[in-house]
Amino acid sequence: MTDLAARILRNDRRALARAITLVESTRADHRAQAIDLLQELAGHGRQALRIGLSGTPGVGKSTFIESFGAMLVERGLTVAVLAVDPSSARTGGSILGDKTRMERLSRMQGAFIRPSPSQTHLGGVARRTREAVALCEAAGFDVVIVETVGVGQSETVVAELSDVFVLLLAPAGGDELQGVKRGIMEAADMIVVNKADGDLKATANRTRADYAGALRLLRKRPQDAPGFPKALTASALQEEGLAQVWEEITALGDWRRAEGHWQARREAQARHWFIEELRQSLLARLETPQARAQIDAAAAQVARGEAAAGAAAQAVMASLQSGGESLDVS
Amino acid sequence: MTDLAARILRNDRRALARAITLVESTRADHRAQAIDLLQELAGHGRQALRIGLSGTPGVGKSTFIESFGAMLVERGLTVAVLAVDPSSARTGGSILGDKTRMERLSRMQGAFIRPSPSQTHLGGVARRTREAVALCEAAGFDVVIVETVGVGQSETVVAELSDVFVLLLAPAGGDELQGVKRGIMEAADMIVVNKADGDLKATANRTRADYAGALRLLRKRPQDAPGFPKALTASALQEEGLAQVWEEITALGDWRRAEGHWQARREAQARHWFIEELRQSLLARLETPQARAQIDAAAAQVARGEAAAGAAAQAVMASLQSGGESLDVS
Repeated sequence: MTDLAARILRNDRRALARAITLVESTRADHRAQAIDLLQELAGHGRQALRIGLSGTPGVGKSTFIESFGAMLVERGLTVAVLAVDPSSARTGGSILGDKTRMERLSRMQGAFIRPSPSQTHLGGVARRTREAVALCEAAGFDVVIVETVGVGQSETVVAELSDVFVLLLAPAGGDELQGVKRGIMEAADMIVVNKADGDLKATANRTRADYAGALRLLRKRPQDAPGFPKALTASALQEEGLAQVWEEITALGDWRRAEGHWQARREAQARHWFIEELRQSLLARLETPQARAQIDAAAAQVARGEAAAGAAAQAVMASLQSGGESLDVS
Repeated sequence: MTDLAARILRNDRRALARAITLVESTRADHRAQAIDLLQELAGHGRQALRIGLSGTPGVGKSTFIESFGAMLVERGLTVAVLAVDPSSARTGGSILGDKTRMERLSRMQGAFIRPSPSQTHLGGVARRTREAVALCEAAGFDVVIVETVGVGQSETVVAELSDVFVLLLAPAGGDELQGVKRGIMEAADMIVVNKADGDLKATANRTRADYAGALRLLRKRPQDAPGFPKALTASALQEEGLAQVWEEITALGDWRRAEGHWQARREAQARHWFIEELRQSLLARLETPQARAQIDAAAAQVARGEAAAGAAAQAVMASLQSGGESLDVS
């Protein structure tokens, strides 16, 4: 076993940080090292509880993670916090780009906070995040919180790698109601309406009831425990309702373990990501400059109705094949 | 121009039926003919109004299409009806497997009804349906209704090839409430609660209000005209509310045309399907028996936690490459 792997398994935070930098790197030699390291760690470590947390800027995500994470650490748990969003899309209000905004949690011995990487594009986000989660699990954290502001497909990525997916909302009613981005509500195991304090408390309760009603209109999934998906209220600022959120999360986790859904979901996710990795390796052949130019030209013809999709695809495939090098496995 | 193409452009129903059989076929020579035919027809014909219609068995889809289609034909429009579902998943209650169940509509001169193919798997459904829609447009139909019972990903397929996507529901309340399959509500431009007649009328109105409330909680998309997505009630049996459904569909279509969303959506869909076609051609290389066996073995290792996804994918890619023939363009 390499020294880096051994140190990660001993929960050495500097080694963990270095390993995450490795999986975030786009350099080919770093990538090769990252693959070897993850393979070394496979089967070691243990399962953390992976909590996916999505919420648009302004819902108080930073305060929520700070208060919720601190509560868990005070209960003796170790907590890692990761962010999944492409940096280009992050505008102010993001905690994780600025560790100092989670000052209390970041000072705690039981917590590990990884700021969002400064240069990522969404395509690489899924792999980077999945691998960073695997590293945190190898390091033995009890809970891994993966945060997303839900840019592009990032909330789907987070839902696909979490054991429990929580959607955080702010109290809103009437004209303020922005609505939830499509796809997120349907992935949620739990909706938490934050800022249920002071003047907003009544609005928060109404918002909770509205979403509880909407959740009841969705068909139950096999992995939904009785009563789930649930809608709750909380105040991260006043540290109210956080214990209940944790109770519900662990109750759902326990139910899924008892019913066999937990392990089945983990295995399905692992399989999904492996197939995805394989597909991406193959599809990378369509990403060479030569292939891209041909594809863009053909796509424009199809969009204008000048060519049918099937014939255009056949022509591009034949051209790429005769082109030779562009179809090499890279 | 081939005779078959010319006959389709003249709205020859037998030629259209034969062409759809061609795109449904899995035989390589049929596939080659289908690709040539669709390429010949590209740019000919005109845009129909493509209405996607999803609803689980029991919501009265057959009666709805019969009454709604007949109303359109009586107004002087021509209507083609296609079904998108994998036949294996169709259990009773399906109109389109049995043309006689839409007796009135099928006898009308202005209507063309294509039963669901007897042997299809979901993977091929998207392409088959998209190509059948293109053939119906080439044949000059004013309206093409694509019906799905929402098995697997079929409702996503239908949403991706329709101009307006309608979700049909039955009145239900309290314990009966089954809920809508995740992903469908979010794709809907309009929800129609059918069977709003007799004893069920009050329940239908309540169901409509429930879903109208839920739709308001979703974020607006750029292509949502003011007031959309909408929830309506109708009775296909009593032929009530159908005119309003049609008015809303055309109003939405007109708004989208005026705002530039219609053509933009058409072009985005064409581009999407072309890229999808190209991706599927490439990914077919993972579908050879040799590749499948390796992938299944590796996926099982990853699922058991014995291997990391990245290393396993790398090993399979290397093996397929050295294997040679399995990576040939087929």
